[in-house]
Amino acid sequence: MGVLNLELKKYVDDSYEIEIGYHLIGKLVEDLDTGLAGTIHKFAVITDSNVRDLYAKPICERLLSAGYHVDLFVFAAGEESKTRETKALIEDAMLEKGYRRDCCIIAVGGGVVTDLAGFVAGTYGRGVPFINYATTLLSAADASVGGKTAVDTPLATNLIGMFYQPLKVYIDIAAWQTLPQRQMASGLAETIKHACLANLDMFEFLEENIGDILGFKKFACEYIAENNCRIKYQVVMKDERESGLREILNLGHTVGRAIETVSNYRLLHGEAVAIGMAAQVQLSARLGYMSEEEAERVIALYNKAGLSTVIPPYIDREELVRKLYTDKKVRDGKLRFVLQKGIGGVVEFSPGVYARPIEESLAREIIMEL
Amino acid sequence: MGVLNLELKKYVDDSYEIEIGYHLIGKLVEDLDTGLAGTIHKFAVITDSNVRDLYAKPICERLLSAGYHVDLFVFAAGEESKTRETKALIEDAMLEKGYRRDCCIIAVGGGVVTDLAGFVAGTYGRGVPFINYATTLLSAADASVGGKTAVDTPLATNLIGMFYQPLKVYIDIAAWQTLPQRQMASGLAETIKHACLANLDMFEFLEENIGDILGFKKFACEYIAENNCRIKYQVVMKDERESGLREILNLGHTVGRAIETVSNYRLLHGEAVAIGMAAQVQLSARLGYMSEEEAERVIALYNKAGLSTVIPPYIDREELVRKLYTDKKVRDGKLRFVLQKGIGGVVEFSPGVYARPIEESLAREIIMEL
Repeated sequence: MGVLNLELKKYVDDSYEIEIGYHLIGKLVEDLDTGLAGTIHKFAVITDSNVRDLYAKPICERLLSAGYHVDLFVFAAGEESKTRETKALIEDAMLEKGYRRDCCIIAVGGGVVTDLAGFVAGTYGRGVPFINYATTLLSAADASVGGKTAVDTPLATNLIGMFYQPLKVYIDIAAWQTLPQRQMASGLAETIKHACLANLDMFEFLEENIGDILGFKKFACEYIAENNCRIKYQVVMKDERESGLREILNLGHTVGRAIETVSNYRLLHGEAVAIGMAAQVQLSARLGYMSEEEAERVIALYNKAGLSTVIPPYIDREELVRKLYTDKKVRDGKLRFVLQKGIGGVVEFSPGVYARPIEESLAREIIMEL
Repeated sequence: MGVLNLELKKYVDDSYEIEIGYHLIGKLVEDLDTGLAGTIHKFAVITDSNVRDLYAKPICERLLSAGYHVDLFVFAAGEESKTRETKALIEDAMLEKGYRRDCCIIAVGGGVVTDLAGFVAGTYGRGVPFINYATTLLSAADASVGGKTAVDTPLATNLIGMFYQPLKVYIDIAAWQTLPQRQMASGLAETIKHACLANLDMFEFLEENIGDILGFKKFACEYIAENNCRIKYQVVMKDERESGLREILNLGHTVGRAIETVSNYRLLHGEAVAIGMAAQVQLSARLGYMSEEEAERVIALYNKAGLSTVIPPYIDREELVRKLYTDKKVRDGKLRFVLQKGIGGVVEFSPGVYARPIEESLAREIIMEL
């Protein structure tokens, strides 16, 4: 019979601030007092068992004494908690406590907490505001910019989720000192990746000051906290829906993700990315996009950060090659890699396309040599 | 230390078409052939056990013979399937079949299917396109406009979900004839509500032609299909996030929702809304917003549509009064009702506020008399 046209055009402003500093709980409460979350006075603080006592409880106490209604929701730390089941448990606990649409969620922790709590916020009452209090270097770099939230399922990592932007992000650098050394190094893997793909100056800063970062010197930590966000923001802002440019953040992740899975998560994400970055620079050098010396410089920086760039002996390299085909960049059964162009840039394979098809034989050759 | 401002402003165009007609499967395939879903060629058709054979399988067959990749995902018909668990089962089945981000979901059925499949689409791969093929009057009226998707949980109806707009909606009026008479009448409850809140002409059309609607006369069915969407669109367009005006769609739902729950779902949603509308017009008349005659006209139209406006004897009226307090419009422990102003309008209680505080004693009085 007929067609009705529904015009749904609108201007959306999802802008927000990232506050970088030390011990930011006071600042968070101050921001809420001055209207960050509007008139909302009910806060659900979501955290994991590692962060509960160190940061989440102090935040709850401060909010309580400032007169807000607060409840704490805690799940077991670890990637294996990032599931639909944990999400449902948190939702039920919030419903049980009477939370409706007039609440705000505060995520306190690393990447798993942000991914999960952000997803809870995005679907609770069809979306309630949320605030991200990031306590790890990895979540500072990775989870603060981009609005990605997700859970894992038995068959896929990060495939069920949504894009949902926070009201504000706090990066508490003081919290990094509470991380195990291995976690801190793992977080640096993404920091170095950011420098490799976008900024030679930052790369050189890291070469010079990596010791000061690992020693938690203020100037060095502030520099990487800020520049990680800045680089990621520049990429994400131009491609919010991950259609093209955003693929460059996947640098080093083709082999990295695969080795993380094949290791059965014995390797931390950053440890796997370090090896994936080594594979990537070898490949880029082999294809003439960078010199052998530049490739060596990247590998040397990873090693200086305490990250091995060698495939561990317990990894079956043939299984690793097969695993490459589960990568999300695979198109029509063909492997595709994002590649570095020198240090501080990436290869634009064709206009707007940053993933380049790679023959399996070449990928295998690199992996066998690594 | 410092603050980074992330500017995330953008212009979003979620416009889409609603196609109203008879037997629209051919039109759907034609639209896909001419690029409705871009270059996507993988389609996940989601439906329930009632609609599978009548509509979903024929759609799959037509898509298959048009050369598309199609899989059918079926869940048990009924509101009790609208859960996080059913959502997870569908997601796992889609993952199992290799669906990634380059797919499109087609929801085929009534409101439960749309709500659930739309939510799956909104979070699968952080959002894939979806198409809504509505087969009931209720879903034509209710689920085609507004972008609301959701599931139920043991503690709350429709509280976990998101706003997510379809690529296109098809309202197949021919499908209405396959509905049980009780479902058709139930769907009319929302249609009459739309006329009551927005359009006296439509109300008079319904008074004159309700028999022809129940007899599936083309002119009458087309009229209500189109005007339901038009009214809802006018309301929703002005208030996508349900902050004020959209509350008027809640007309009759304060008592309606409560009685639906207290009846333990023996009453269909529309049957409960009919009783809720009767309570609402009595209240509006009592408060001087409409005449007794107008209230009687509304009640008479519901009855003419085959809907009772009397509280069934098995309902505990005191329990019903208590249940009113779980309504989402309750503020600071006080009941709030949307009220009609004559026929074809609503009361704007204060600028932008359409829900009016009502004393419990008055609400009880109306309920005891109904």
